Amino acid sequence: MSKERTEISSLGEFGLIEHLTRNIELQNASSVLGVGDDAAVVDHFGRQTVLTTDLLLEGVHFDLIYTPLKHLGYKSVIANLSDIYAMNAVPTQILLSIGISNRFSVEALDEFYEGVYAACEKYGVDLVGGDTTSSQKGLVISVTAIGEVAPGNFVKRSTARPGDLLCVSGDLGAAYVGLLFLEREKKIFLESPGVQPDLEGESYVIGRLLKPEARKDIIAFFAENKILPTSMMDISDGLSSEILHICKESNCGCVLYEDKIPVSEEMRNAAFKFEIDPTACALSGGEDYELLFTVAQSDYEKLVLNEQISVVGYITEAEQGAHIQTRGGNKHAITAQGWNHLRG
Amino acid sequence: MSKERTEISSLGEFGLIEHLTRNIELQNASSVLGVGDDAAVVDHFGRQTVLTTDLLLEGVHFDLIYTPLKHLGYKSVIANLSDIYAMNAVPTQILLSIGISNRFSVEALDEFYEGVYAACEKYGVDLVGGDTTSSQKGLVISVTAIGEVAPGNFVKRSTARPGDLLCVSGDLGAAYVGLLFLEREKKIFLESPGVQPDLEGESYVIGRLLKPEARKDIIAFFAENKILPTSMMDISDGLSSEILHICKESNCGCVLYEDKIPVSEEMRNAAFKFEIDPTACALSGGEDYELLFTVAQSDYEKLVLNEQISVVGYITEAEQGAHIQTRGGNKHAITAQGWNHLRG
Repeated sequence: MSKERTEISSLGEFGLIEHLTRNIELQNASSVLGVGDDAAVVDHFGRQTVLTTDLLLEGVHFDLIYTPLKHLGYKSVIANLSDIYAMNAVPTQILLSIGISNRFSVEALDEFYEGVYAACEKYGVDLVGGDTTSSQKGLVISVTAIGEVAPGNFVKRSTARPGDLLCVSGDLGAAYVGLLFLEREKKIFLESPGVQPDLEGESYVIGRLLKPEARKDIIAFFAENKILPTSMMDISDGLSSEILHICKESNCGCVLYEDKIPVSEEMRNAAFKFEIDPTACALSGGEDYELLFTVAQSDYEKLVLNEQISVVGYITEAEQGAHIQTRGGNKHAITAQGWNHLRG
Repeated sequence: MSKERTEISSLGEFGLIEHLTRNIELQNASSVLGVGDDAAVVDHFGRQTVLTTDLLLEGVHFDLIYTPLKHLGYKSVIANLSDIYAMNAVPTQILLSIGISNRFSVEALDEFYEGVYAACEKYGVDLVGGDTTSSQKGLVISVTAIGEVAPGNFVKRSTARPGDLLCVSGDLGAAYVGLLFLEREKKIFLESPGVQPDLEGESYVIGRLLKPEARKDIIAFFAENKILPTSMMDISDGLSSEILHICKESNCGCVLYEDKIPVSEEMRNAAFKFEIDPTACALSGGEDYELLFTVAQSDYEKLVLNEQISVVGYITEAEQGAHIQTRGGNKHAITAQGWNHLRG
């Protein structure tokens, strides 16, 4: 046993993954794409299978005080389907494992699975396997999703090119503000259990947190309109962090326009109640499960057909760095302040 | 929220899985085989992909007091590859997720991954993805394995037929006795930390627990000799429990001969030290990762070529039940006393 001790926190989540996977040499010809993207790509006899997996731990990824089990089941599936769509693929199956302590009743588990099955039905995927085990403490959820993509049509993070348009789907930051409300109500509840929660009018932002959707529609739109993004990933850790991934992996820079970042009216109003900047929520809040992608400029005419897509900037040469152009006309370097579950 | 409360323990692990998956209707034509076997089968454009996943929790599935991290990494992979082989398929990729607390150093994780990569290399599989997250307490490991099989060549649990020979690979019960030694030494260590462990001469049984192998060779032997088992599963919960699965799923009975159950000399000697019956270890001990399978009688001549395969009995009609014929000439019903992680 080595006597050195390097703290995991000194590497950070992505540094740790890089460290642990630095020596991988793929052995099978069928391993088309390995660690480092939203999902892996496996070639099965000339057609391609996309695979992704997520591990969700109680107390780290979810808080059962304000997360209904049905919503948790739904969201656990959605988070993985989002990774499959982020590869420009269509999800077809999932495997679901859970570790449960005896504090859960069968009825509680039924609620969780109701959410799982609702997501499966809505997105046309089958639950085909998994593992069920006891846990000494805390609920543990592991989901693996499998999808299909026509050969060569999967889209990586590493293939954006200078001049490409930087785009996002939907609106950003709402899930984060929804979390702020629920954390506030949890604090009040723990201090004064009799007080009724005051979430009047915040159903949009709370819904974005508790019942997110994956952007199946955007992938279908790409297929219908013969758009092949040059790079893509899903936004689970906040826009800043994801843009920096695309830039780093693609060896590019970018310009992001603050005034183009799509935010909802509900999120903007809610952010003001917490006296925080809506742009900061969009940049650093997570769990929106929207898509971030780049397309060739020649696809611009096709893109504008879809009002769910916003062009928020463009890709530059690496030397120009990754910048945000603010409403006030200033230019700042983009920094990652996304949710980093390994910070603690 | 329902007011009823059914304890999970009242259903048992398999009852729980049946309950939670009772309403699944597969939507995709590509979902060939769903929940209920060692692995799922997905059809990818005419060829078949086999998928399985396991969730391993510290304190439930492993004890870090006597499990070196390198061995744990190795075993986590092996347990999943074994499920792929049990479908008569060849594993090609894995996804690995871990949840880790900050009590682990990067060096400790490196050891874990050394074991993971050693297993990948030995079995020719690629680690192509996963998830890394923090855990508040306890190490959490989730492995998904992917394999290939020629169309129609996957082997289920539910297709044994009366008259088929009941076979197992390797020898059984050693991992369980290995566990007894390590649990004994742990107890002594916790009571008297100064005492050196006394595991002299027990390397075989301890090795079977800490560094199991998956039976790649048996699947290769089947392919070379054109043997297609009529049913198969891996032995992870003990022979009794697994035989009952095959009988129940195939709607058959069986006769198992006690004197044909393969046990090693090392396991037999070790079992005597604990004053337990070696046959009981083979029947109820788990984690051997051997294969249990049935073949048509016409394959008998081919089977005997392989001394790693033992014919231990035969399949009967369901009405005759599942029995063991003891050395003393008695006949008992086989009962499942396998490791049930949900008993607690």
